[in-house]
Amino acid sequence: MTSLKIDLSRLMGRIEALARVGARADGGVCRIALGDEDRQARDLVISWMRELGLSVEVDALGNVTGTREGAETGAPVMTGSHIDTVATGGLYDGNLGVLAGLEVVETLNDAGITTRHPIAVSFFTNEEGVRFQPDMMGSAVSQGSLDLEAALAARDRDGVSVGEALAEIGYAGAAEMKRARAYIELHVEQGPVLEREGVTIGAVESVQGISWTEYQIIGTSNHAGTTPLALRQDAGYVAAEIAVAARRIAKEFGGDQVATVGVIELDPGLVNVIARKARLTVDLRNTDEALLCEAEARMADAVADLAAREGVEITSKKLVRFKPVAFDLGVISLVEGAARDLGASVKRMPSGAGHDAQMFAPNCPTGMIFVPSKDGISHNVDEFTAPEEIEVGANVLLGVLLSLAEK
Amino acid sequence: MTSLKIDLSRLMGRIEALARVGARADGGVCRIALGDEDRQARDLVISWMRELGLSVEVDALGNVTGTREGAETGAPVMTGSHIDTVATGGLYDGNLGVLAGLEVVETLNDAGITTRHPIAVSFFTNEEGVRFQPDMMGSAVSQGSLDLEAALAARDRDGVSVGEALAEIGYAGAAEMKRARAYIELHVEQGPVLEREGVTIGAVESVQGISWTEYQIIGTSNHAGTTPLALRQDAGYVAAEIAVAARRIAKEFGGDQVATVGVIELDPGLVNVIARKARLTVDLRNTDEALLCEAEARMADAVADLAAREGVEITSKKLVRFKPVAFDLGVISLVEGAARDLGASVKRMPSGAGHDAQMFAPNCPTGMIFVPSKDGISHNVDEFTAPEEIEVGANVLLGVLLSLAEK
Repeated sequence: MTSLKIDLSRLMGRIEALARVGARADGGVCRIALGDEDRQARDLVISWMRELGLSVEVDALGNVTGTREGAETGAPVMTGSHIDTVATGGLYDGNLGVLAGLEVVETLNDAGITTRHPIAVSFFTNEEGVRFQPDMMGSAVSQGSLDLEAALAARDRDGVSVGEALAEIGYAGAAEMKRARAYIELHVEQGPVLEREGVTIGAVESVQGISWTEYQIIGTSNHAGTTPLALRQDAGYVAAEIAVAARRIAKEFGGDQVATVGVIELDPGLVNVIARKARLTVDLRNTDEALLCEAEARMADAVADLAAREGVEITSKKLVRFKPVAFDLGVISLVEGAARDLGASVKRMPSGAGHDAQMFAPNCPTGMIFVPSKDGISHNVDEFTAPEEIEVGANVLLGVLLSLAEK
Repeated sequence: MTSLKIDLSRLMGRIEALARVGARADGGVCRIALGDEDRQARDLVISWMRELGLSVEVDALGNVTGTREGAETGAPVMTGSHIDTVATGGLYDGNLGVLAGLEVVETLNDAGITTRHPIAVSFFTNEEGVRFQPDMMGSAVSQGSLDLEAALAARDRDGVSVGEALAEIGYAGAAEMKRARAYIELHVEQGPVLEREGVTIGAVESVQGISWTEYQIIGTSNHAGTTPLALRQDAGYVAAEIAVAARRIAKEFGGDQVATVGVIELDPGLVNVIARKARLTVDLRNTDEALLCEAEARMADAVADLAAREGVEITSKKLVRFKPVAFDLGVISLVEGAARDLGASVKRMPSGAGHDAQMFAPNCPTGMIFVPSKDGISHNVDEFTAPEEIEVGANVLLGVLLSLAEK
């Protein structure tokens, strides 16, 4: 247990300074990966890294790591996140994790502490996946779950590749991909759970697996007045039944299973015409791969039953599939311990969103620290976490990094 | 019972000739009310009326009536329908009723028959309601359920009024609105029932009442991964539940109750975002006004329950409301009798679509004759009724008109 504390005003100063790069008129931030605002933000964060005495390396995908020497050499204990945003981004998503890492470094510098293992702060290229897919690209390549060449070849809508865009902004580096001794990331929750429960710190146990399926339903367009119910092949009705089934199945599963139908489109989409076609998507998430597979199977059964009962043709396409990721029990305990040392409330919880940390989990002990998001809002200019919550989160990060760096 | 029969080839000849006015390249017809094709079609049908010796009158809304003298004077027994089409129209919707009426007149002329009461054949302005609303405009004004001035003032998207369009095509007439002694209309079913049941003639008992309601659902947009089910206000899920409730309520009512959700729109409509807003429409129809009111009330209850349970705000707007129309039992019996005299199968049935005949029902004994629509298709260039079915339908019309004209 350390009595060291981070300096909140210094951290908030960096958060605000970084938010001025790509600032939107409405108070938010638009800093799409590998655009000019991203370049400016990278230059700024690297200038801070250098001021703090970190040795800065840029790898071939533009991931940037600043390392603080330890008493021993070898792989560093790492923290970090990303500084790219969505088009309607806020100040905290990603940025908080990177800048809190720098604040921890400055706190150690001020206290004249040399840790046993090196400590590194990274920011990873294109976590958001707005301009180039997939998201979490930089951390995925860095940790070996995505091929470097494939990532460099990904193109935006204008045909520009990641490799070209990196060269353009001067961030096609030569450093090797960094492996970590351990990895810990501070991030805003992006959901409503901590705020609703009045808890300050989330000790993230896992990242939900994600399954996205698109269904196309082909029925028969007919007159809404003259076609008896028994003679209908109503694609719109079947779409609605699938959406209701998704919620029912998720509820029956309980736990952290969620299901979302965010897209329903009917064709022709007229008041008095039975829909001939419908398209909908089902987003299923669970932290347990076996349960997620079971939820997928239950959905498939429900859809097949509906197709048979209603006489429609339904085709499905898997759009996205990520397995759940479990974090290290030791790191989870360190997060809980660091929170309790500060007198802060803490709860174990899954992450419903994807994060750079999940790419490290197969390679080293990994964990995450969540702080509350007001009203659960993220990817939105109204994204907000209170300064006092940021302070607790950064101090938990300090405590966990110190523990990991001494192990 | 008459041994007279209509001449199918002569009737088909007129159907094909009329279909050449506004012919589409794909074999269908586009003859929007009060456009130049409508003018040409009117001119053609009036030329046939004159050839048949009918005295032609055009009223102030452009409804055209050709009257064949009877032994007595007074209000005629009327038949008719409309010659305007939707943009993707076929050959039969409306046109069949008008041209079968002319074929009956020519059959009577050839046989040298003078009926007791006059017989009139009409076509009514703007039944389809494509360019100007409401639909069934001409018959509604003619029979006093819609104000003439209001109809003349209705404007299309370019700001042109019905009155201006009528003057432009030369069909702003001076004749009085026609009242009928009785009214009978032959029309294609526009639904699949007769074909499915292998029945040739529908003796239409009633026109379904129509209730269109638009629902706007306001929920909360949130992350599909990080928002637990219990904390969601998912407008998309609620829309799906309303669509399922509409089907369930219609099924529980049984009889000829139908319910259709043809429009579902989600906002923002993204795979991984819980919908903030949804818009959907519910189309309810029943031939019994009390049951239709009850179905509306049941829907309103279901919607209110969902709003309370899911914590969303739902507003509703009535888009269309027509009461059901019951046809005259005497005329229904005449249709059944005329069909049986021809050895044709016949069944009583409601009409799910609106027709000019319904405007006559409050004023005089009224009925309709349906013939099958292949695959239930209408308002489509693939609309088709077999010539042998048209022949039976026109002969039923002949029989009913003769009976009504001798009463």
